[in-house]
Amino acid sequence: MKKNLLYLGLLLAATTGTALAQEPVDTAMVHKIRNEGLNHSKVMETAFYLTDASGPRISGSPELKHAQEWAVNQLKSWGLVNAQRESWGKFGKGWNVQKNYAAITVPYYHAIIAIPKAWTPGTNGPVQGDVVIIKADTITDLDKYKGTLKGKIVMLDAKPGVERTYKADAVRYTDDQLDEMAKAKPTTTEARRAVGPNSPFMRARVLRAAINTFLQNEGVALILSQARGSDGTVFTTNGASYADTAKAVSPELETSGEDFQRILRLVKAGIKVQMEADIKTQFYTDDLQGYDVVAEIPGTDKKLKDQLVIIGGHLDSWHGATGATDNAAGSAVMMEAMRILKAVNFKPRRTIRIALWSSEEQGLFGSRGYVLNHFGDPKTMVLKPEQAKVSAYYNLDNGSGKIRGIYLQGDSAAAPIFKAWLAPFKDLDATTVTIRNTGSTDHVSFDAVGIPGFQFIQDALDYGTRTHHSNQDTYDKLSEDDLKQAATIVASFVYHTSQRDEMIPRKDLPKAQ
Amino acid sequence: MKKNLLYLGLLLAATTGTALAQEPVDTAMVHKIRNEGLNHSKVMETAFYLTDASGPRISGSPELKHAQEWAVNQLKSWGLVNAQRESWGKFGKGWNVQKNYAAITVPYYHAIIAIPKAWTPGTNGPVQGDVVIIKADTITDLDKYKGTLKGKIVMLDAKPGVERTYKADAVRYTDDQLDEMAKAKPTTTEARRAVGPNSPFMRARVLRAAINTFLQNEGVALILSQARGSDGTVFTTNGASYADTAKAVSPELETSGEDFQRILRLVKAGIKVQMEADIKTQFYTDDLQGYDVVAEIPGTDKKLKDQLVIIGGHLDSWHGATGATDNAAGSAVMMEAMRILKAVNFKPRRTIRIALWSSEEQGLFGSRGYVLNHFGDPKTMVLKPEQAKVSAYYNLDNGSGKIRGIYLQGDSAAAPIFKAWLAPFKDLDATTVTIRNTGSTDHVSFDAVGIPGFQFIQDALDYGTRTHHSNQDTYDKLSEDDLKQAATIVASFVYHTSQRDEMIPRKDLPKAQ
Repeated sequence: MKKNLLYLGLLLAATTGTALAQEPVDTAMVHKIRNEGLNHSKVMETAFYLTDASGPRISGSPELKHAQEWAVNQLKSWGLVNAQRESWGKFGKGWNVQKNYAAITVPYYHAIIAIPKAWTPGTNGPVQGDVVIIKADTITDLDKYKGTLKGKIVMLDAKPGVERTYKADAVRYTDDQLDEMAKAKPTTTEARRAVGPNSPFMRARVLRAAINTFLQNEGVALILSQARGSDGTVFTTNGASYADTAKAVSPELETSGEDFQRILRLVKAGIKVQMEADIKTQFYTDDLQGYDVVAEIPGTDKKLKDQLVIIGGHLDSWHGATGATDNAAGSAVMMEAMRILKAVNFKPRRTIRIALWSSEEQGLFGSRGYVLNHFGDPKTMVLKPEQAKVSAYYNLDNGSGKIRGIYLQGDSAAAPIFKAWLAPFKDLDATTVTIRNTGSTDHVSFDAVGIPGFQFIQDALDYGTRTHHSNQDTYDKLSEDDLKQAATIVASFVYHTSQRDEMIPRKDLPKAQ
Repeated sequence: MKKNLLYLGLLLAATTGTALAQEPVDTAMVHKIRNEGLNHSKVMETAFYLTDASGPRISGSPELKHAQEWAVNQLKSWGLVNAQRESWGKFGKGWNVQKNYAAITVPYYHAIIAIPKAWTPGTNGPVQGDVVIIKADTITDLDKYKGTLKGKIVMLDAKPGVERTYKADAVRYTDDQLDEMAKAKPTTTEARRAVGPNSPFMRARVLRAAINTFLQNEGVALILSQARGSDGTVFTTNGASYADTAKAVSPELETSGEDFQRILRLVKAGIKVQMEADIKTQFYTDDLQGYDVVAEIPGTDKKLKDQLVIIGGHLDSWHGATGATDNAAGSAVMMEAMRILKAVNFKPRRTIRIALWSSEEQGLFGSRGYVLNHFGDPKTMVLKPEQAKVSAYYNLDNGSGKIRGIYLQGDSAAAPIFKAWLAPFKDLDATTVTIRNTGSTDHVSFDAVGIPGFQFIQDALDYGTRTHHSNQDTYDKLSEDDLKQAATIVASFVYHTSQRDEMIPRKDLPKAQ
């Protein structure tokens, strides 16, 4: 192998006159990986089985289990070992939608676009009722509705959310934006500001909980709440707890902005609106555990095979669609990276592990639980021996856009390494190494116990505007070329991380929380 | 009044050194109209009653009748006379949707976004069935399916239509685009090229008709066809004839691109898909006539009161939404223009008539029928006396965007007049007079018998991408400021047309077709 090592640092130093670390890049292997990843990709086939064939993969659902079992078998079929579903701890109730129908019937017929809020119950058969608007700025405002709402379809007043933007739904990073990221200075990580009990957010939450209890006691037939989104795109959230001890709530539909506002305008204008609905949801309580999928390509270097390179993404999704960009994309890319490495017959020095997390959407539970079980507790910073053996964790979970670089998450010592490893992918637009942190996904769980954890920089495409947590997060929104590029780059990063003489340098250990 | 007349032509000639026609503009009246139209508008209230309160206004439906009756009463309440629904001739069967539910049930549950094609029947109660893909490039390709499709849910194979654009959904005209329109040269109007029986279009149509007959004879439960649109936006069309003699077809759902392609991918991958659906549609045959709404502000000048200025837009819509931008917008603007003229207590020299057409979507039938009944036959060019008495017809039917100018439809003699009349609206971005033709809406019916018929130039907004004929053509997509501007400019045009000493100059009479 050594004859293929290009000392890119030297090369760059010669051309730019600056002295970079001499981080080796194996160009022959990069060539093989590129050929496999770009010309013989299976990433879309993998994505198909995770999305279309499995369905919405909300935590604890049979659909998530289907995708997990498919992934385990697929990883095995590619020659990975120790492939299995591994419990990360207790999650709570599974849930899915089994019937979803709602329509205006008076003053005329119109079927609405709406999605049951996660972990809400169904209507227990078809229901019909008049629509009533609830206006409550305080809990005492509810008094006036007492005894009047049984069997009603209730809306909570809300301002219109639909707005014409004159901006493209889908975007890619501009050179200027990437430049700014590359030049960013290290900042001390601020602890997330605690939300006080008197904050508007917490007050609204308390009020909404009180309204929910009131409506549940009144026996309303159905609640309509306004979804974010427009043009038929409905962003989904949860409407109740997944805890096995959660108290009962009313059925609730997250309703498209257009349909919600239409009904609201009619009722406010004094025009009677009647609706019919038939919602069935199912809770699953036979197994309250949450599971990750793990599998490995075992290391072959006697000294290093106990060390790990881990890659991952979360496999769970929201329930309005098939979670294609959030995050079958990342899961398929990480599986594809493993497939590429097997296809080029790579025998790594360190062990390479893939982990497909679950319950990311509820709070990174799958990765947090896994880290707690294997590496340490971020609250106490009591660490397990394996914590010292993980060179790096790489994550992909920012949609279907290609990789434009990597967030160092403050680990400045990794910068010259990653710059060298990105150099062969300049023609594929991946160039940027930024000291910045990015949050909200599973690399954070590793970073929290002092394991270098990284998320790649990805083009946004229409993640923020159309797909992220929406009913439109479907296979169609996957960008094949972007996913191929991402898998190729991840495979190359994993290759180099597993072969590197040293582990990826670490930041100082975080303090106990 | 005369003291208020500003001889704008003179003014422009003085500043530019060119001699324009001295077309008078009544600035005092323009000021009054602007104040009423911009500061005391009712256009959104009118649009609410035409859209939200009436529903989808497909030709012959009770919802269209509701909107027509509301408009008649509203126009009467504003002091217009001769307000009525007037038959333009025989249309055919009315139709609307009374239940619309469809979902995948195997391999998992997912309710789809789909709209019954217009004038297709329902499923006659809930149905369940396996999904089968039909591939037929020729009629004989159907033979292999014979006897196998009873009770099946059938899809016609189609390429994916969903594509990421990186362009904004909503746009306005740029200065350059308007400049190009203003500088356009007159062109001879080409007759629309006839579509030959061997054209790909006609061959596809014949094949599809044969497939429909085959599927109807097989007794399929439901046909799914792929709709144009993405992200939950579904563009609708008709799936059968509205003729009272039309033969029976199968129930057919125009299915969102995402849902259609998901099912297609699953079936093609050999994964069994089952669906359930419950579609109910209703035909109305008690009155096969089509109706327009007409109303007038009568002329007061002895010599001119038999002459007419007509304004209009079509009130009918497609059935997937409430036809807000197509064309409640134009209807509400034209009603508002009449309201403004009444509010400023205008007593016109010529009679001003508003007409809200129906069955525009099926072929401009409402305006064509009206023109045939009142003004002449474009086929024979046998004209009625009233043809000579219409100074101009102004139409609005290009969505909710504000007026940026006017299409002369080749009537070059009208250019200096319209330029003068637009001058007071430069601050509202309406400046452009183009010699160009625009088609596809009701001014064409007037132009066809030699009556000057004009459509205004309007900003597109998201008409082409989101609302035009889609399930997302809702009140939310109306742009209040744009509609106020449009109504104000139309009112001013109507005012000046009605007061002008001469009628609007005419082009040469068209030849008999």
